[in-house]
Amino acid sequence: MERTVFFISDGTAITAEVLGHAVLSQFPISLNQYTIPFVEDVAKANEVRQQIDELFEQTQLKPLVFYSIVSSDIRAIIEQSKGYCQNIVQALVAPLQQELNIEPLPSAHRTHGLTESNLIKYDARIAAIDYTLAHDDGISLRNLEDAQVILLGVSRCGKTPTSLYLAMQFGIRAANYPFTADDMDNIQLPQALKPFHHKLFGLTIDPERLSAIRQERRENSRYASLRQCRMEIAEVEALYRKNNIRFINSTNYSVEEISTKLLDILGMSRRMY
Amino acid sequence: MERTVFFISDGTAITAEVLGHAVLSQFPISLNQYTIPFVEDVAKANEVRQQIDELFEQTQLKPLVFYSIVSSDIRAIIEQSKGYCQNIVQALVAPLQQELNIEPLPSAHRTHGLTESNLIKYDARIAAIDYTLAHDDGISLRNLEDAQVILLGVSRCGKTPTSLYLAMQFGIRAANYPFTADDMDNIQLPQALKPFHHKLFGLTIDPERLSAIRQERRENSRYASLRQCRMEIAEVEALYRKNNIRFINSTNYSVEEISTKLLDILGMSRRMY
Repeated sequence: MERTVFFISDGTAITAEVLGHAVLSQFPISLNQYTIPFVEDVAKANEVRQQIDELFEQTQLKPLVFYSIVSSDIRAIIEQSKGYCQNIVQALVAPLQQELNIEPLPSAHRTHGLTESNLIKYDARIAAIDYTLAHDDGISLRNLEDAQVILLGVSRCGKTPTSLYLAMQFGIRAANYPFTADDMDNIQLPQALKPFHHKLFGLTIDPERLSAIRQERRENSRYASLRQCRMEIAEVEALYRKNNIRFINSTNYSVEEISTKLLDILGMSRRMY
Repeated sequence: MERTVFFISDGTAITAEVLGHAVLSQFPISLNQYTIPFVEDVAKANEVRQQIDELFEQTQLKPLVFYSIVSSDIRAIIEQSKGYCQNIVQALVAPLQQELNIEPLPSAHRTHGLTESNLIKYDARIAAIDYTLAHDDGISLRNLEDAQVILLGVSRCGKTPTSLYLAMQFGIRAANYPFTADDMDNIQLPQALKPFHHKLFGLTIDPERLSAIRQERRENSRYASLRQCRMEIAEVEALYRKNNIRFINSTNYSVEEISTKLLDILGMSRRMY
């Protein structure tokens, strides 16, 4: 069964997408998706309404509409469409209002917007991205005292995407350091990392998955061979154990999962942006 | 007024945080926040319940609990706590079930997890991050035919964080190219970029904000001076206009807003990860 779904917002529509996906993933249906951000005026809202109505006329199935719009005038236009309209935030605001016993003060663009009140936090987040890029892949081992976490692992085990996700989503300054084939004869924790043992976090990965990822990069190379991958991983895991470095296996985890597990294991607080 | 809020999940808790923040931002209250991901067994759930109950005993105010947990046994433990418990996904699943007239098939870890069915999409997203890093800041002008968008702008106007966000969130291969002080005497669109006019997207920024950002990097430099910032921005905006390059002013926008506006203006589809 296929259904069409619209994610509509007066802002980025990221919240509508994330929540809409979480809800829709509970049902065994395939989706034809449209995301329409920045529906900020009557003309745009009417255009969207027409698109929804035309789809309904064609299919005789209500398009699913997940929306979040602050202005009641613009919202009303969407609500008058022939879609199944679900105001994603309001569904939770009404019961919460009862519990808090205060009136909501809705304002547009709050969730992913830039306002005077969050500018300092936003700048810190951009600074974390800068720091993380400057300390990617062992480029620089200077200023490691400013890192909040230092990821370790072999080439292509997920260090860089995880570091960037930590910076982007949580504003965390994440350095990362690679162990290469040259390190394997006598693998050791670099002297420069030793003072920061409490910030170290290792990644490992199944050799089969690592080999497949490396094949994409350098086909039929020694670098990508299963034997080389097995050896590097065995060496690195032994190093983690010997030095009491906490680590996880990234094979079956997304960057979101690796990042949130890392924060959980290291006991770091999550700041939301 | 301050209230304590818990975001609890059997997965990353990212959805619970994003939606919880969207809902709570509607109310003028300050928050004391705890995020507890990976609540996957009874022991962990009991621990969390105890934490909630203790807070209630101390404050006599119900902690706000936004949660998303698939297992009914584990969910029941949280629901028996003394918090104000809001199942964030379920609030929208029940009405949708009526419309779709099919039973939900809940499964854990779907939203931000890595499964066999989304592995290919996930690998494409990691490849987009790799591409974007390799084409950051004009490092490489090769393989621009593989870019889906090429961002232009002066130093520190937001190109790099925006490119990385596009790759991370939407799996988009985003190159970016900087115009430097040396380009200003006779600013021109580089020959290498001309074949890709349809992918070009310019950023601009208010000179005052640019100067403040550059001061953080090189205090009291010519680079950070308001005069230099004004000149560079005037030159770059003139270039955009002369070459019919679409652009936006990033001053008051977050990377989420810049990215989603860019996709909207270029008519690119958004894939969710």
